[in-house]
Amino acid sequence: MLKGYTVPLSPKGEANGAMAPPWHYAGDVVGVEFWTDPAAAEATLPEGLSPDPETSGRVVAYFFDWQFNGENDEYLDPVYSQYREFFVLVDAHYDGQPVSWCPYIYVDNHHALARGLVQGFPKKIGQVHQTRVFASPGKASPTPAPGARFGASVSCDERTLAQARVTLEKPLDDPSPLLSRATINLRHFPTLEVGKYDKPAVHELVRMDYGDQQLAEVWIGSSEIEFYPAPREELADLRPVRSGMGFRGSMSYNVTQVFPLG
Amino acid sequence: MLKGYTVPLSPKGEANGAMAPPWHYAGDVVGVEFWTDPAAAEATLPEGLSPDPETSGRVVAYFFDWQFNGENDEYLDPVYSQYREFFVLVDAHYDGQPVSWCPYIYVDNHHALARGLVQGFPKKIGQVHQTRVFASPGKASPTPAPGARFGASVSCDERTLAQARVTLEKPLDDPSPLLSRATINLRHFPTLEVGKYDKPAVHELVRMDYGDQQLAEVWIGSSEIEFYPAPREELADLRPVRSGMGFRGSMSYNVTQVFPLG
Amino acid sequence: MLKGYTVPLSPKGEANGAMAPPWHYAGDVVGVEFWTDPAAAEATLPEGLSPDPETSGRVVAYFFDWQFNGENDEYLDPVYSQYREFFVLVDAHYDGQPVSWCPYIYVDNHHALARGLVQGFPKKIGQVHQTRVFASPGKASPTPAPGARFGASVSCDERTLAQARVTLEKPLDDPSPLLSRATINLRHFPTLEVGKYDKPAVHELVRMDYGDQQLAEVWIGSSEIEFYPAPREELADLRPVRSGMGFRGSMSYNVTQVFPLG
Amino acid sequence: MLKGYTVPLSPKGEANGAMAPPWHYAGDVVGVEFWTDPAAAEATLPEGLSPDPETSGRVVAYFFDWQFNGENDEYLDPVYSQYREFFVLVDAHYDGQPVSWCPYIYVDNHHALARGLVQGFPKKIGQVHQTRVFASPGKASPTPAPGARFGASVSCDERTLAQARVTLEKPLDDPSPLLSRATINLRHFPTLEVGKYDKPAVHELVRMDYGDQQLAEVWIGSSEIEFYPAPREELADLRPVRSGMGFRGSMSYNVTQVFPLG
Repeated sequence: MLKGYTVPLSPKGEANGAMAPPWHYAGDVVGVEFWTDPAAAEATLPEGLSPDPETSGRVVAYFFDWQFNGENDEYLDPVYSQYREFFVLVDAHYDGQPVSWCPYIYVDNHHALARGLVQGFPKKIGQVHQTRVFASPGKASPTPAPGARFGASVSCDERTLAQARVTLEKPLDDPSPLLSRATINLRHFPTLEVGKYDKPAVHELVRMDYGDQQLAEVWIGSSEIEFYPAPREELADLRPVRSGMGFRGSMSYNVTQVFPLG
Repeated sequence: MLKGYTVPLSPKGEANGAMAPPWHYAGDVVGVEFWTDPAAAEATLPEGLSPDPETSGRVVAYFFDWQFNGENDEYLDPVYSQYREFFVLVDAHYDGQPVSWCPYIYVDNHHALARGLVQGFPKKIGQVHQTRVFASPGKASPTPAPGARFGASVSCDERTLAQARVTLEKPLDDPSPLLSRATINLRHFPTLEVGKYDKPAVHELVRMDYGDQQLAEVWIGSSEIEFYPAPREELADLRPVRSGMGFRGSMSYNVTQVFPLG
Repeated sequence: MLKGYTVPLSPKGEANGAMAPPWHYAGDVVGVEFWTDPAAAEATLPEGLSPDPETSGRVVAYFFDWQFNGENDEYLDPVYSQYREFFVLVDAHYDGQPVSWCPYIYVDNHHALARGLVQGFPKKIGQVHQTRVFASPGKASPTPAPGARFGASVSCDERTLAQARVTLEKPLDDPSPLLSRATINLRHFPTLEVGKYDKPAVHELVRMDYGDQQLAEVWIGSSEIEFYPAPREELADLRPVRSGMGFRGSMSYNVTQVFPLG
Repeated sequence: MLKGYTVPLSPKGEANGAMAPPWHYAGDVVGVEFWTDPAAAEATLPEGLSPDPETSGRVVAYFFDWQFNGENDEYLDPVYSQYREFFVLVDAHYDGQPVSWCPYIYVDNHHALARGLVQGFPKKIGQVHQTRVFASPGKASPTPAPGARFGASVSCDERTLAQARVTLEKPLDDPSPLLSRATINLRHFPTLEVGKYDKPAVHELVRMDYGDQQLAEVWIGSSEIEFYPAPREELADLRPVRSGMGFRGSMSYNVTQVFPLG
């Protein structure tokens, strides 16, 4: 009997791209809030979601340096467990409640991609980078302090898709508003039969369940972000018309499930 | 209404990792036939397949340099359309007929990975290489001729998993036996709900349908292949106990569908 | 006594990034001739070279798929021996003779980079791709024939720097004009002492010596090429103002030496 | 007049792989001290260095996550400025003084490679990883504390060359002994003329000059490290026979020069 969670299933159940949960995460984030044309934001929403009437056009872009862990100290094997990720979350409404929707997301690790597809994150492979802080001072590392600056970028298929800059102003004493919206994803797995390309085998909205979610050392400030058009990418259609808050900090949580909606 | 085939679905339907078929392929292959412990081969088979009693333990390893094309001249954008792939096919029986089963497969391009998952190929990202032939002669390129040698290798997560060597002996006049077995895949998409990790949302055997399949300039000869153990990989459990034919040539086909079984 | 050719020197002399010559090469090329602003071309020339008065502003861009070989069948280890390369050659005069000068060159393999630096090629790491021909016919592969099209691209540091397109018209019966100009390189190794950053330890013009150089299956036709600005890159300052011949074929040669000039 | 520091020299002087100093660095390090066969250590020494009679066979392996900065806020462009590096330093004597010698070093960024070659570090391209600490707690990140564990690895040409593990015991109050030895490098640039492959154009021992060198948050503890043989690599000839101290912390310094010896 084959074992494992995602493919490949195998005799020992070790070869799978993603092992079964629980999945533990810790990471650093450089984030940028901005507003785009509300029609562009709305165009990315799946059936079942509608614009948030209070914040229509609001998007938050996240550049993450992540470290994953499973049940077997996988964090000690950084080739397997570390990855970097970029995604945007669009403000929306589901059933009258404010939620977030992720139209585009890129990671640089195929195990993270495998986990993401199961969660309904529409992951592609990309390269993501952010300025880091190191404990030893000097001109090569910012220190979290007023005026400290952080750069970040993402590319896919050898083209830079976005570049951002965050300048810190002050610590965020209560970071909980950063976590106030539920994230709604779309688990989707197509059919490969003639005449049924638009009849997916799986197509269901789910609500992410983040366990033990924590934020630490979050600072906020000002931000800039720019998107660049590229073939077969639509991220640039969410081009910013107004910039908002920037932030930089650390986050951790775990994942064991999603909740199917409707 | 969101458009596209695989995720991400998007307003224009261009951002998807894999566009809807038809999918056209052309490539070069270095192939190695070998025999492993029949129990090791059998252990990789999904429910519904059984060992082929006539060839139990027979496996063929393929190293491919591929070029993909869709309906819009994607072959002119080689960043998108080219990829290299390694996989093994294990001889098996389905419903009393000789078939092939693919337990492990690696590609170096995320678009190829997205197409593969829909087909039921259990793709992970890996790096694959094979010796090439160039038209201009010299010491840096073999010429298809008796004694010509080709090397090939595959790695995943920074570890070499297999290395192979093929030495040509003669052209294969009728390559059709190389295509005689149907390939059976397993489309599989997990559930992410506590208590249901082993109740996948999709789990169905399918038969691949290769359209207009052609082989060209196929030579056969002798072969060597070696597998190397690595964390979270089970390919090395199919270690060769006897080597068989090696081959090198070109192949093309297209894909529009798979046939669900049972 | 340490052995080897380039660093690292080592007890066995096997760890060096580049082994001592002879170096054998075979490859496929997609090439594009174009004219840029003569002042932009001249600005790239080192002291000792002057514009070619007959062809001032003429540049040829080359996208190569290469296979290297040394004295020990290194072509059988494609991870080591294969690489892809982009470079531009600017028409110039040296000592009254027509020559070529390479201002910018990118490769995707660090062993090729190590060999190039010794030859005076100013290599950086980049990603290079070109449409390939496969022997098995179909919609995924062009066949060298009138109207066949080839795409090519190069990126560095996650930004696409150039994209090209060649459409074949006819075979080139005598490809020797493609090889008529000597290539002049600049071997350059800086000093790392305060006040001497501009007093390099090595700074010498050399003439490349290509042994047993051959071309095969060369077709010519029309071409397009576009350069894209990027931080810390100056390739785009050679932007085309007029396009010339495109070509596609195979080349092989070997290298054992360069000739110091002056 | 062409400008720049390393190749390519160019009209604006911006295209060079490495700009002229000053070079500023900050990074995290996972380090492992071990003893190898003294004859193996001695075999890596260049002419001019001899074994340290007090510590013969002692080697320290370093896995670094680095961030570079020049004079123009390059740390805000992490694609350019971040890199990861592995190297070993062998204890030796120069002119009767205890020094360190670097026989092998790998980096994942070609700009870092270009700077290293000028300094006399024998860099090749490799992939390097280390477990990271994140401020937000949880099962995916160690906290610097007794018993905290860190993993690290390096690969080159798709083969893992070394894996290490460090378990922290206590903070290191005075980390200055970690910096007590001068590092001696060999600047080496070959000649490419027949008969002169062993007569390099540059071949000089230099002493590194680290400016404003600082360490922070250094912990020490126990360590494990294993080397793996690979084609064209000799690192595994330094295989450990006895393990020593492990450490983990942060470091910063700057570089403007080296001092030629003799």
